[in-house]
Amino acid sequence: MDQPKNLAREGGHLSVARITDAWYPLAASDELGARPLARKLYGMPLVVFRGADGRPAALIDRCAHRNAPLSAGRVAGGELECSYHGWRFEAGGRCTHVPSLCGDPPKRRVLASFATREEGGLVWAYATPNVEPTREPFAIAPAEAGYTVAIRVVDAPATLHATIENALDVPHTAFLHRGLFRGAGKRNRIRAVVTRAADRVQTEYVGEPRPEGLVGRLLSPSGGIVTHYDRFILPSIAEVEYRIGAENHILVTACGTPVDDFVTRLYAVIRFRTRFPGWLVKLALEPIALRIFGQDAAMLAKQSATIQSFGGEHYTSTAVDLMGPQIWRLMRRAELGRITPGDSTPDGWRREIDLDV
Amino acid sequence: MDQPKNLAREGGHLSVARITDAWYPLAASDELGARPLARKLYGMPLVVFRGADGRPAALIDRCAHRNAPLSAGRVAGGELECSYHGWRFEAGGRCTHVPSLCGDPPKRRVLASFATREEGGLVWAYATPNVEPTREPFAIAPAEAGYTVAIRVVDAPATLHATIENALDVPHTAFLHRGLFRGAGKRNRIRAVVTRAADRVQTEYVGEPRPEGLVGRLLSPSGGIVTHYDRFILPSIAEVEYRIGAENHILVTACGTPVDDFVTRLYAVIRFRTRFPGWLVKLALEPIALRIFGQDAAMLAKQSATIQSFGGEHYTSTAVDLMGPQIWRLMRRAELGRITPGDSTPDGWRREIDLDV
Amino acid sequence: MDQPKNLAREGGHLSVARITDAWYPLAASDELGARPLARKLYGMPLVVFRGADGRPAALIDRCAHRNAPLSAGRVAGGELECSYHGWRFEAGGRCTHVPSLCGDPPKRRVLASFATREEGGLVWAYATPNVEPTREPFAIAPAEAGYTVAIRVVDAPATLHATIENALDVPHTAFLHRGLFRGAGKRNRIRAVVTRAADRVQTEYVGEPRPEGLVGRLLSPSGGIVTHYDRFILPSIAEVEYRIGAENHILVTACGTPVDDFVTRLYAVIRFRTRFPGWLVKLALEPIALRIFGQDAAMLAKQSATIQSFGGEHYTSTAVDLMGPQIWRLMRRAELGRITPGDSTPDGWRREIDLDV
Repeated sequence: MDQPKNLAREGGHLSVARITDAWYPLAASDELGARPLARKLYGMPLVVFRGADGRPAALIDRCAHRNAPLSAGRVAGGELECSYHGWRFEAGGRCTHVPSLCGDPPKRRVLASFATREEGGLVWAYATPNVEPTREPFAIAPAEAGYTVAIRVVDAPATLHATIENALDVPHTAFLHRGLFRGAGKRNRIRAVVTRAADRVQTEYVGEPRPEGLVGRLLSPSGGIVTHYDRFILPSIAEVEYRIGAENHILVTACGTPVDDFVTRLYAVIRFRTRFPGWLVKLALEPIALRIFGQDAAMLAKQSATIQSFGGEHYTSTAVDLMGPQIWRLMRRAELGRITPGDSTPDGWRREIDLDV
Repeated sequence: MDQPKNLAREGGHLSVARITDAWYPLAASDELGARPLARKLYGMPLVVFRGADGRPAALIDRCAHRNAPLSAGRVAGGELECSYHGWRFEAGGRCTHVPSLCGDPPKRRVLASFATREEGGLVWAYATPNVEPTREPFAIAPAEAGYTVAIRVVDAPATLHATIENALDVPHTAFLHRGLFRGAGKRNRIRAVVTRAADRVQTEYVGEPRPEGLVGRLLSPSGGIVTHYDRFILPSIAEVEYRIGAENHILVTACGTPVDDFVTRLYAVIRFRTRFPGWLVKLALEPIALRIFGQDAAMLAKQSATIQSFGGEHYTSTAVDLMGPQIWRLMRRAELGRITPGDSTPDGWRREIDLDV
Repeated sequence: MDQPKNLAREGGHLSVARITDAWYPLAASDELGARPLARKLYGMPLVVFRGADGRPAALIDRCAHRNAPLSAGRVAGGELECSYHGWRFEAGGRCTHVPSLCGDPPKRRVLASFATREEGGLVWAYATPNVEPTREPFAIAPAEAGYTVAIRVVDAPATLHATIENALDVPHTAFLHRGLFRGAGKRNRIRAVVTRAADRVQTEYVGEPRPEGLVGRLLSPSGGIVTHYDRFILPSIAEVEYRIGAENHILVTACGTPVDDFVTRLYAVIRFRTRFPGWLVKLALEPIALRIFGQDAAMLAKQSATIQSFGGEHYTSTAVDLMGPQIWRLMRRAELGRITPGDSTPDGWRREIDLDV
């Protein structure tokens, strides 16, 4: 059915950039045990498993024989065994065994395989098959002594761009998370300083008071100046860093995986130090954090549904949309090959903007 | 997947006409209170709310900022507030407030807005955005003294054409509603007189006896000649008028809204006067009417599913399909701009047909 | 949304052949009683009913009038009556009665009709409408005296080719049906002899010992040499024949119907003779057979989902894929009209292959 003309005019473009010369997490290390996992990257089904040496391997999730999903099979002796006819594949995608067959397995067809790494508590895969990447996954800064560490995996029903913008957007917190994250009461004028490098953009918030909501009261009962950085680093890293007073430091590095055009999985590596014991903070904050993320995921789902029903986006940004347009600019440039990978040289661009939050 | 050739040959066209220079109801007046309503018109998502003056407003249901659905927000001070970042819009679609922003909201992007009216107990919108219509919605005749009035809203999973034809079709009642509406017993020969005007078609049934089913017995226990008119008026009005004996008069004006190509919402304005008290008739007839409509909706769903699985319709009409082809002719002419809106001049065309019902 | 380039490259073709000059079963004889049945053949909705002479009739499942599905109606006096307006159609698709209409029913539009046969306990239809076929459905060999006969109907969520290959494939049984059909223990080398005719292919397994699993033990507790044939006969017949020792003989003729490109219905006609009473064997084997088929259907569903998510297949075959490539070759040739229907002349081609099963 054609769309009516009115609707078609409203359409718009889609903030979907496919950056395939890059690493994305496919699992937390402790998710990947003896059983293979089914994953998707840009809509392509992959199977992840641990090979003979215990290191992760990622293959296209389609048996070379009759195209059954290999993730429905099992790992036997470090090889992946298809559950339909029992063909076996080693970590590199080569078939090693065909049951019933008297003779050697077929050599000519090797499954597409994806380079993998296991670093920072995550299993990463390179999004282009059958190549050996010339650089490494994003290095998540390790936790210093006295920090509590946690990894959480959440799914957002939205594009990578919309999900990352949401994670790094300050103004929505006063509306969508009213009373949970920021208070509903009086507003403060703070200054945001946005700076860029070739592969990243950072906003520093200057003069931000302690958040008023429940989260703020728990983190720093004595008040104190907040140091707050939001960072996006190509291809899909959203990092939020807070220091509240002298004793509280929280650093969340969320690594986004483009599962499909409208499904993003975030692997959030959380490190923090507060005046309370880590287990207590976790106990207190986890339900709040999950509720905040639940509100974000519900809103992203509505946003995605609206964009899909109109056949595209039509965004308007103002000065307080500090990160979204910058994130899209970087994603699009990376997709077009205009970013030298790993180049974090500042580009001299800088904006200072006042916000009432 | 391509369709097999056999099936493709059977396909056919689709009786979907998009008449966008016209008014359609989006809500009954009493549905629209303090909360915004999500609606669709020809597949386009709209949000309806009451502006500062209490009058209804209809905007495209997509926030200009990040494309969240505005219908998920709230009305505050007669303005629509998005639930994602709190942008506010007045009834005309202009953004009036952007939280956090120091300075004026962006002027350049105004939401598409739809002219509205509140008349006859319904909230109407004009299907073309950003224009001031030169004529008014269909004027539903007000109820005279002594009449009982009710408005009922029902959804049919079918095209506007199929739904309206069903509402104005007499022959199906003896089959689909066997025993409920018309009796299964002996048939009577009646005469139908079909006349047309530029924007409408009417069938008058002459010599129709009181219906035999339960409905008929309740309406007029003493029998009596029936006067029965069925009318279609562009773009989407189906009107059924019955007089049974001297004392019973029922007039149903169903205003159709093309929610989507295969979803039609009917706003039925019902006015009647009988020898029984109105509340008693309502009590007795409402379950029967709902059951009749339920049978119609189920049949329309089957018809739609069949048409969609074949990729189109292939209708055959006979002399007793009095209204369907006439309705389609008018809809199609209106879509092509060949009807002068509001022109109800008779065109002299007239048919007399005998039916056994 | 476009697919990412990686995925597109992996795509492949689809083993879907549409052979429309052929007979397929639409029902078991005892499924077709007084009520019409809704069926699909290559995605086309058909209605099957018994006409005035009790013989089956098959029409396109769309009323010529307003396109309601005729299968939602009823059979009255050997004619099919639409439940919307009561139009009636005889077995040939001609409209015989239009209620309310004073005069003859419309002659010009006759529903597409499909030749039917009732043979071997099945109701067959010819897949091209409005032609009288020049040959008959596949003749299922009748059961000899002392045999037990059963007909079972099962659905597989897969292409006809994938379903038939599964039904005639030996190597998968040791994996997918581990412990049920073949034992997990030691393997035996057997010889397979594949021979072909113009319209069929057959594999004979020579030297196969009695299967070790539960099924084997039940069939032939005393052991003994197995004679085992697997046959595919155009357009959609899969036949499996086992003789185990002197006293056990089982012959399953599964007639496949291409309901849709990825839905296949199998009408399995089962005839067997064993040393146990037929009712006892049925009682013991039916749950096992159903569990085996359930495992096959689940695997076919996973295979279909994988093929669909990649937009096509990419198969690799080895010497032990005895039947699949041969089946596809025949189906494809039949679709292209390169098979003389009914020609079962051997073509002289022959392969002998050793398998470890």
